[in-house]
Amino acid sequence: MTLIDDIGLTHLTRDLGRVEERLAGCVRAEDALLADVAPHLLRAGGKRLRPALALSASYAACGETDPASADVVTGAASVELVHLGSLYHDDVIDEAEIRRGVPSVNARWSNIVAILAGDYLLAQASSLAASLGADVAGLLAATIGELCRGQVLELQHLFDRDRTVESYLSSVEGKTASLMATATRIGGMVSGVPADTLDALTQFGHHLGMCFQVVDDVLDVTRTEAELGKPAGNDVHEGVYTLPVLFAVERSDELRALLGRTLEWPEVARAVALIATPDVIDASMAVARTHAAKASEALAGAPGLDPSVCARLRTLVDGLVDRRS
Amino acid sequence: MTLIDDIGLTHLTRDLGRVEERLAGCVRAEDALLADVAPHLLRAGGKRLRPALALSASYAACGETDPASADVVTGAASVELVHLGSLYHDDVIDEAEIRRGVPSVNARWSNIVAILAGDYLLAQASSLAASLGADVAGLLAATIGELCRGQVLELQHLFDRDRTVESYLSSVEGKTASLMATATRIGGMVSGVPADTLDALTQFGHHLGMCFQVVDDVLDVTRTEAELGKPAGNDVHEGVYTLPVLFAVERSDELRALLGRTLEWPEVARAVALIATPDVIDASMAVARTHAAKASEALAGAPGLDPSVCARLRTLVDGLVDRRS
Repeated sequence: MTLIDDIGLTHLTRDLGRVEERLAGCVRAEDALLADVAPHLLRAGGKRLRPALALSASYAACGETDPASADVVTGAASVELVHLGSLYHDDVIDEAEIRRGVPSVNARWSNIVAILAGDYLLAQASSLAASLGADVAGLLAATIGELCRGQVLELQHLFDRDRTVESYLSSVEGKTASLMATATRIGGMVSGVPADTLDALTQFGHHLGMCFQVVDDVLDVTRTEAELGKPAGNDVHEGVYTLPVLFAVERSDELRALLGRTLEWPEVARAVALIATPDVIDASMAVARTHAAKASEALAGAPGLDPSVCARLRTLVDGLVDRRS
Repeated sequence: MTLIDDIGLTHLTRDLGRVEERLAGCVRAEDALLADVAPHLLRAGGKRLRPALALSASYAACGETDPASADVVTGAASVELVHLGSLYHDDVIDEAEIRRGVPSVNARWSNIVAILAGDYLLAQASSLAASLGADVAGLLAATIGELCRGQVLELQHLFDRDRTVESYLSSVEGKTASLMATATRIGGMVSGVPADTLDALTQFGHHLGMCFQVVDDVLDVTRTEAELGKPAGNDVHEGVYTLPVLFAVERSDELRALLGRTLEWPEVARAVALIATPDVIDASMAVARTHAAKASEALAGAPGLDPSVCARLRTLVDGLVDRRS
C-alpha cells in the first residue's frame, strides 16, 4: 500500500521485507501440492497493511532508531497469515474467480485445496503466535473466532434491507477491525509495553480498522467502473448492504423497493445512483472520520509512545480516509 | 465407542462427561447462526476416541485414583475440537450428505457455513490449547498443519494405482495418527510427566492411530453392505486407494486394469472381491498388528506409568485390531 510507504517510517520498508521472507519460509512446505498452492496468494502480494500496523506499533513503543525485533517480525507475519488464510476461505465462500488480479485458488485448484491451504496458513499463523507465548497464541485464536463471527453475521444479513447500522458495525468489527486491533496489540505485546499503552495501541488498530472498512464500503459505490475495472456496486450485487446502502434505504423508497434480491447489473447501476448521493456519502464518511479521530486520540492519550511515530501514524489514518482505492 | 467404555477405567465415563460439557460451552456462541451450526456435529456425538486417549494418558501418568484435572479435560476438549473442525471441512471436501447419521452441515447450510463453522471450532481448539501454555498451543498448531499435509497428500494420489505404501502410510500419519499422538502427548504434558515418559505416551498414540486407520481401511472392503448400511468399497469409489488396495494391485492385473478412474457400483463390487482376499487382508492386518504391538511396547518401556492403566490401554489396542465397526 503506497499509503504505508508514504508515511516515511525509517525501518518500515526493510522490516516489511523481513516479514515477507518470514511468510515465504512458512509456506515452504515439504509437500508438493501445499508448496505449490500455499504461496499462491502470497506471491500476489497485497497491501501488507496488517504487518505494517504490527511493526508501526512496535516503533511507536520502542522509538524509531532501531529495526523491529525478530519477535515483532514474527508477530507481523502471524497476523498476515491469518488474513491470507481467511482470504483462501473467502474464495470458496464467494466463489470468487479473480482476487488481486490472479485467478483465485478456488478457480485454479477447486474448493478442496482452497480449504486445506487456508487451514494450513491459519495453522502456520497459530504456530508463529505460539512461539511468542501463550498470551499471543490466545489472542490470535480469539481473533480468528472473531473473524468467523463477523463473517457469519454478514452472511445472516445478506439481502436484508432491514439490516441495522449496529449489526453492520458489529460485523465490520469482527471481520476487519479485530485483526487490525490484534496486529497493533501484538506489536505492543512483544515490545513489552505497559497495559495502558497496550490498550491504547489496540484501540488505535481497532478504530483504524473500522475507518478502513467504512471507507472501503463507500468506495464500492463511489468509484467509477474505470477506476474499479468492474462495475461499481459489487457489494450491492452480492447482497452485502453496507453503511451507505443502509443510510440510503432510510432516505429512498425506490431503493428499498429495488433491494432485497439479486439484481441484474443495470439494476445495480440504478441502485448505486440512488445510494451515492452527497447526503449519504457525507453521512457515511462522517462515521469513518469519527473512527479516524478516535484512532488518533488513542495514540495521543497513551503514555510513553514515540511522538514522531505517532505523528506519522496519524498521517496514515488521514490518508486512509482520503484514499481513492 | 464401546471399546473405550469397555476397558473399565474408573473415571473415564464421568471425565468424558466433563469433556462433553466443556465442548458444549465452547460452542455456546453469542452469534445466532454459529450457535445453531457449531453444536450440530457436536450433538451427533461420535466416539470421542481422542479425548478418551488424552484422559487415559493422564491416568497412566497420575494413576487411577483421581479424576482427571481440569487442565486434562481442557486438553481433551481441544483435540476433539480439532477433529470436529476438520470434519466440517471434510464435509465440504467430500460433499458428503450424511455424516454420522445426521445430514451433514454442508447439505444443511451449504459450504459457506461449513467452512466458517470449521474455522470457528479450530479457533476454539487453539484458544483452549493456549490456555494450557505456549507448548501445548504450538503442538496443536503443528498438528493442524500435519492434518492438512496428510489430507493433501491423499488428494494428490486419488485414483493413483501407483500410490506407494510409503505415501499411504505418510498420509495416514498426517490425517489420523498425528492428532491421536497429540491427544496422548497433551494428556502427559498437562500431567507434568518427564520427557522420556512423554515420548512414550506420544509413541503410543501415534501407533494406535496408525493401527486404527489401517483397520478402518480394511473394514471398508471386508464389511458387508448389511453391516455398513451402504455398499462396501466406498474408498475405492472415491479413488482413495488404501493399504489393502495397494497390496491387491500388486497381486491382480485385473484389479489394476479396473482402477484408475471412477467406477460404477457394480464395478466397485468386483474390485472389492479382488481386494478382499485372505492373502491381502492378512498382509494388511499384519501391518495393523505391527503398529498395535509397537503401541503396547511404547507403554511397556516407559518409566513411571501406572501398570494397571497400561494393561487396560493394551486391551484397548487389541480391541481396535479386532473390531468389526
